[in-house]
Amino acid sequence: MKVFRAESMDEAQLKEFASRPRVDFTSILGTVSPIVDEVRAKGDAAVREYTAKFDRVQLEAVCIPIEEIPEPALDAETQAAFDLAFNNIKTFHAAQAAPPMEVETMPGVRCSRLARPIEAVGLYVPGGSAVLPSSALMLAVPAGLAGCSTIVLATPPRPDGSITPEVLYCAKKAGVTHILKAGGAQAVAAMAWGTQSCPKVDKILGPGNQFVTAAKMLLQNSEAMVAIDMPAGPSEVMVIADAGADPVHIAIDLLSQAEHGPDSQAVLVALPGVDVDAVQREVERQCDLLPRAETTRRALTHSRIACVNGKEEAAKLSNWYAPEHLIINCDDAASWLPLLQHAGSVFLGRYTPESVGDYASGTNHTLPTYGYARMYSGVGLDSFQKWMTVQELTSEGLQALGPAVAKMAAVEGLDAHRRAVTLRLGLSSPDKFD
Amino acid sequence: MKVFRAESMDEAQLKEFASRPRVDFTSILGTVSPIVDEVRAKGDAAVREYTAKFDRVQLEAVCIPIEEIPEPALDAETQAAFDLAFNNIKTFHAAQAAPPMEVETMPGVRCSRLARPIEAVGLYVPGGSAVLPSSALMLAVPAGLAGCSTIVLATPPRPDGSITPEVLYCAKKAGVTHILKAGGAQAVAAMAWGTQSCPKVDKILGPGNQFVTAAKMLLQNSEAMVAIDMPAGPSEVMVIADAGADPVHIAIDLLSQAEHGPDSQAVLVALPGVDVDAVQREVERQCDLLPRAETTRRALTHSRIACVNGKEEAAKLSNWYAPEHLIINCDDAASWLPLLQHAGSVFLGRYTPESVGDYASGTNHTLPTYGYARMYSGVGLDSFQKWMTVQELTSEGLQALGPAVAKMAAVEGLDAHRRAVTLRLGLSSPDKFD
Repeated sequence: MKVFRAESMDEAQLKEFASRPRVDFTSILGTVSPIVDEVRAKGDAAVREYTAKFDRVQLEAVCIPIEEIPEPALDAETQAAFDLAFNNIKTFHAAQAAPPMEVETMPGVRCSRLARPIEAVGLYVPGGSAVLPSSALMLAVPAGLAGCSTIVLATPPRPDGSITPEVLYCAKKAGVTHILKAGGAQAVAAMAWGTQSCPKVDKILGPGNQFVTAAKMLLQNSEAMVAIDMPAGPSEVMVIADAGADPVHIAIDLLSQAEHGPDSQAVLVALPGVDVDAVQREVERQCDLLPRAETTRRALTHSRIACVNGKEEAAKLSNWYAPEHLIINCDDAASWLPLLQHAGSVFLGRYTPESVGDYASGTNHTLPTYGYARMYSGVGLDSFQKWMTVQELTSEGLQALGPAVAKMAAVEGLDAHRRAVTLRLGLSSPDKFD
Repeated sequence: MKVFRAESMDEAQLKEFASRPRVDFTSILGTVSPIVDEVRAKGDAAVREYTAKFDRVQLEAVCIPIEEIPEPALDAETQAAFDLAFNNIKTFHAAQAAPPMEVETMPGVRCSRLARPIEAVGLYVPGGSAVLPSSALMLAVPAGLAGCSTIVLATPPRPDGSITPEVLYCAKKAGVTHILKAGGAQAVAAMAWGTQSCPKVDKILGPGNQFVTAAKMLLQNSEAMVAIDMPAGPSEVMVIADAGADPVHIAIDLLSQAEHGPDSQAVLVALPGVDVDAVQREVERQCDLLPRAETTRRALTHSRIACVNGKEEAAKLSNWYAPEHLIINCDDAASWLPLLQHAGSVFLGRYTPESVGDYASGTNHTLPTYGYARMYSGVGLDSFQKWMTVQELTSEGLQALGPAVAKMAAVEGLDAHRRAVTLRLGLSSPDKFD
């Protein structure tokens, strides 16, 4: 891992420090675009064709109402673990429900804002070789809480055409209505356009590889009328550690990010007193022990360490980088929060590895990567809702507010706007322009 | 205005009823793309060039810190009107601030969610021939409330190179930091990439013509690392009226939408007892009186009326159409709210024309059009913020939650994730894989 010294970093080094493995979406969009068009034109037949080609599975049904799939059998310990995660995720997301909000901005002028569920949503759960039931929970629990009436979960089928039992268990428990047995751009396109068997959705959420992300980006700008949660790049973690942090824990937290894939990024910001050499040795030793050591080692080639002189310098680097995951492995960790401006999710203290948030603390693991934490939120209850504003004026309210509205409409030269007020107030005549 | 009868509408007619004037973004993207690239490459020089070409203005400074522009002089009545609007918009948006949220999802596992301002935002205020200070208020007031530290307001300069005094007044009052004297795709690109004089922003918000919208769509999928508020199409209103609604008021509300531009859409849903012929006559008569009669008349060519048998049928049509603005000109208007699922902003009762929300009731007028009210919210305080989630476990919390996390990580085959927990709990050894 390349080591930077914060006090000597110029702008070029800051840029290098915050740089991510580059994703070339222009060329990926070129690959994905014909797949999206083909699914639009041919529906299920195209999804079947691409699934045979990419996943080597001959699908019978493409998208199935979930009640048609039998309840899977999980062993008791696994089921209990997912049940615990389900409960914590539900608790945290339910607490995000905004209380009713109504204000009288002036006498007789009442304004409010109401949350409404997005009717049909599509959840993308990566799969294939890997098995990611945690993503099913992270997406389906808030969708169910929000009251979405159609919840399609797309995930690539296993070689025998079935769905991973843990994914199915989580989907059923959280209220998913349809399972789309497909992955990649073809799954995203099927949900965006709708097919013979798959309902058309209003919004598509969830992590995915670069083809999934490219399809989402393409479709949000298309005639499909579909929104997406956020753009996505490779996953990343920043660990800020002080002298009291155990190098073994620092190392395994960096590695738990690196094991996601060769383009993952793990960054350490070391406060004074951290034995950076000991951390590097521990990273090597722990990495060698992992079954996924090879992938993990590739990710480490673009990981890095910055040595800083204090808290402000560390926070500045963190805000500059805008990490998806930020671990504060420091004394008095909560005192860092006021300094932190851009991060997807923050893990405070000695006992809060990223894994707890990835699975079960209750927070969502669908988070902005690639620096997008500067302007995007992770998935939450509100990702499955939209706001509708409401206003109601009394006759007195319009008398009080109307003349100002008429004046502003006159400034903007919008006379029908003005007359919608003045005709109601009896200040204009319907017979002539005044 | 074409008249439909709800009871005889088949799916094809429903589709026709909900169809909008089509915007061909593919060809517009082709026009806009080279402008965006040129601004990226040449910065201010390119903005100057396009402003000379499209707005026929030779700019000296392109983007200026707002304190360098003298306070404009407005007449007292105009200033008072904008001050009133400012206060109501501020009141309503301040009330949207979410209270601090922290929950203990299980003993020793505390999760919270914190709002953080988006650091740099770009606000697009259309201009040129029209003058739209109201859009400046609608965007800048919540940006200032959210605490954005860089707020760039872009608006096309007047022929003499100056900025409309009312726009400048609103911008200064609301806390805008920079004025970018440019419009169109070149303004959007300058904010997204940054130029010599214009700060690079993290998010671009605000209405605009099809070139502005296309540039925003293009840039949100680009390397510029910029978010946008929402896609935008032509503006639209739906009026639901009952027998007690005055045909003059129905007509002027439809016209106040139609006068926005030839591609605006005004839709009437008439409950039993509405004299549709009287409304049509009144639309004609009021339209003839307007200085913008010609534009307005063009918009009316794709406007329509649906006659319905009752409240449920009307609400169903409204939800199907998903209007940007929805006026309920009915008795007991608030009783409609539970039936309404998809609308940008709702105007209840006899005394609430759309104009009040366009200017001064307090709600935001930057709203989803074109059917996007199904999945997008209008601009609000949260459009200028993002959420950061936080978790902190105690030693006891990790002991309680850790085994479930380790189990789920094992199911997903992510061993470093698992060991980040078990090493902390002393359940694994750093010396060997277990």
